[in-house]
Amino acid sequence: MNAEIVSVGTEILLGQIVDTNAQAVGLLLAELGIGHTHRQTVGDNLGRLTEALRLALSRSDIVFTIGGLGPTEDDLTRDGIAAALDDPLVVDETLEERLKAMFAQRKLAWVDSQLRQATRPSCAEPIDNPNGTAPGLVCRKGGKTVFALPGPKNEFVPMLRGPVREELVRLAGGRVIHSRIVRVCGLGEALVEEKIRHLLSSEDPTVAPYAKPGEVHLRVTSRASSVEEAEARIGPMVNRICDALGHAVFGYDETTLEAAVLECLRIGGRTLAVAESCTGGGLGERLTSVAGASSVFLGGFVTYSNEAKASLLGVSVSTLKEEGAVSAKCAEEMAIGAKARLAADYGVSITGIAGPNGGTAEKPVGLVYVAVAGPDGCVVEEHRFRGIREDIRRRATQAALVLLRSRAMAT
Amino acid sequence: MNAEIVSVGTEILLGQIVDTNAQAVGLLLAELGIGHTHRQTVGDNLGRLTEALRLALSRSDIVFTIGGLGPTEDDLTRDGIAAALDDPLVVDETLEERLKAMFAQRKLAWVDSQLRQATRPSCAEPIDNPNGTAPGLVCRKGGKTVFALPGPKNEFVPMLRGPVREELVRLAGGRVIHSRIVRVCGLGEALVEEKIRHLLSSEDPTVAPYAKPGEVHLRVTSRASSVEEAEARIGPMVNRICDALGHAVFGYDETTLEAAVLECLRIGGRTLAVAESCTGGGLGERLTSVAGASSVFLGGFVTYSNEAKASLLGVSVSTLKEEGAVSAKCAEEMAIGAKARLAADYGVSITGIAGPNGGTAEKPVGLVYVAVAGPDGCVVEEHRFRGIREDIRRRATQAALVLLRSRAMAT
Repeated sequence: MNAEIVSVGTEILLGQIVDTNAQAVGLLLAELGIGHTHRQTVGDNLGRLTEALRLALSRSDIVFTIGGLGPTEDDLTRDGIAAALDDPLVVDETLEERLKAMFAQRKLAWVDSQLRQATRPSCAEPIDNPNGTAPGLVCRKGGKTVFALPGPKNEFVPMLRGPVREELVRLAGGRVIHSRIVRVCGLGEALVEEKIRHLLSSEDPTVAPYAKPGEVHLRVTSRASSVEEAEARIGPMVNRICDALGHAVFGYDETTLEAAVLECLRIGGRTLAVAESCTGGGLGERLTSVAGASSVFLGGFVTYSNEAKASLLGVSVSTLKEEGAVSAKCAEEMAIGAKARLAADYGVSITGIAGPNGGTAEKPVGLVYVAVAGPDGCVVEEHRFRGIREDIRRRATQAALVLLRSRAMAT
Repeated sequence: MNAEIVSVGTEILLGQIVDTNAQAVGLLLAELGIGHTHRQTVGDNLGRLTEALRLALSRSDIVFTIGGLGPTEDDLTRDGIAAALDDPLVVDETLEERLKAMFAQRKLAWVDSQLRQATRPSCAEPIDNPNGTAPGLVCRKGGKTVFALPGPKNEFVPMLRGPVREELVRLAGGRVIHSRIVRVCGLGEALVEEKIRHLLSSEDPTVAPYAKPGEVHLRVTSRASSVEEAEARIGPMVNRICDALGHAVFGYDETTLEAAVLECLRIGGRTLAVAESCTGGGLGERLTSVAGASSVFLGGFVTYSNEAKASLLGVSVSTLKEEGAVSAKCAEEMAIGAKARLAADYGVSITGIAGPNGGTAEKPVGLVYVAVAGPDGCVVEEHRFRGIREDIRRRATQAALVLLRSRAMAT
């Protein structure tokens, strides 16, 4: 059983986008233990697409196409699959009705070119696309299976993880590669490796570290005849990792640091308010990316101007004048102000210089203060981050979450 | 003249890394106007690599291999090229000496497997690798050119930008492909195409639409003997697109919607405050991702709880009780409150149900109100977005920016 990806899109060849969708398929195939020996990329050209699909079908049992399912004349994947499978294209009346209903519901004007999205090879079944107008397709003919998925990431990912994954598990017939990820914060990659060096040589399960911005992820992987069998091997290794790393382990698998922090506060019955300057709302955005954040997170202040810091949070004029908006004192007053104004148990603040402009010799770009005001007083940390504006802002919200977690666990 | 990339590495197929090197080659080929119609990816397997190279050589004048040049048994690219070109592998004595000298200088122990890195097809010339041990290769045979470059990014990029680019410029004999992107908001892809259908059949420059979440990007591309010549053809087409789409065009090339909105307000000397519920800070985060946002953006409120909406923004208790936090009235009062409390010219608010929980039949997940309070009163829009929490939140900030832009342009 082996699979092959055919990515479709001139924008990929031109280098305008990186093909992260193909990566996502690769990860899923690896997880399910399905062989994957070739990948092809072609532009929006029917002849070349058809030729690539014929080659893929000649050597692979499962073929994925990514992209080219939209309503425009450039979207040729349906035509390519039909040609390569030698199967006629038909208009699917159910799809046509559903598309028209969707347009009516959203009060969008119907244009006939949309009808392309209701056509399919006659052997195909549609795959529901909850986030877009173009359905995916699964085509089965002559012992081969072709999955056609749309390119936009927000449409592609849920379809891959949901119905496509289910169908692949069925096709793979049992043998799985299964992993758990142990997520670590507050320790650098080298220190993590030092502490778990004795586990890194394990052959089954294997343990592999991946450095992420402000986190280290340890992937624990086993190949077995069932997920249960793999998990029985993975579990004890995860425990040994936790023994070695202690509180630095904040979660498993898809658990984000923001989710772990909120859960820690929720268990303690604590509430949270934030005050942000250079991150402009990014910390609140991360916290509220977690569904159900409202049981802990009350709200926050984006105090970008000095006036806002004073009027909304009560930062003193003398602090702003003498220490400046990027100072430990200002961070402290922001955290205390946010906590008080929203009557929260914890107030967290961030103030810094994200760049590219605004840095000085004394206060360079990347200087960031984070503060946590809690039931047992206020702590402030100074950081000097490197990188572009986006990196500095991301690292600032990460540092605030790590500090908040350590305070919340201590009290 | 056309080129093709063959990326080599099981780690790419497994999804462990994203193939940004292939993207870099794609960008360079586009810049130089060298056609690029196929890309292949294969694992570390000599048979499949050789086959992929033979296919590439059968249809392309220039072939790039990326990866597989190291000293281990997995590094098979030299062997694959030799087989595909039917050219014997030889040990290059100069390379051997240079490698041994490099090892001596870095005080590394010499192991004989390193000698693989001194072998090359007999027709090949080495390409100097200042950041690593494996030289690149340029192989010329039968009118074809094969470039072999190592995979590590810090080795790959300088070699591509330096000696490989030079050789490509020579091979391309001067032609370039040049593009501009016209960015459109507030109109769906199909409607955009309808309005510019008469331009889509243009052959030089070409016009190609790409749908992005809440935006449509139109790429206008010309092939010419210089960037200046291409721009002289692209400019009039961009003007025709702007004539057809009017104010829906918000920017060009890398200009984000948030940057366009801030610029529009800055020119008018206007200031901005935001009030966010379901987006939790995401709108502020987008606005402050733009360096220099502080000349327009004063700050904002993340009012996640009803209490915060009342205490921080002055949303009336009767509105919260009778209409609810997700209502046009609440959005309006939030926008007016944010504007007033920060003494801004514009207040923008977002309140909605991002899900996955909290929806009802009357107020389903995806129901979002955005409001803009400005010098000429307050307008509110109701939206019903689909997708997961992340999509709904992103679309909500997008809708708020689109509405703000339309109000700011009208006053």
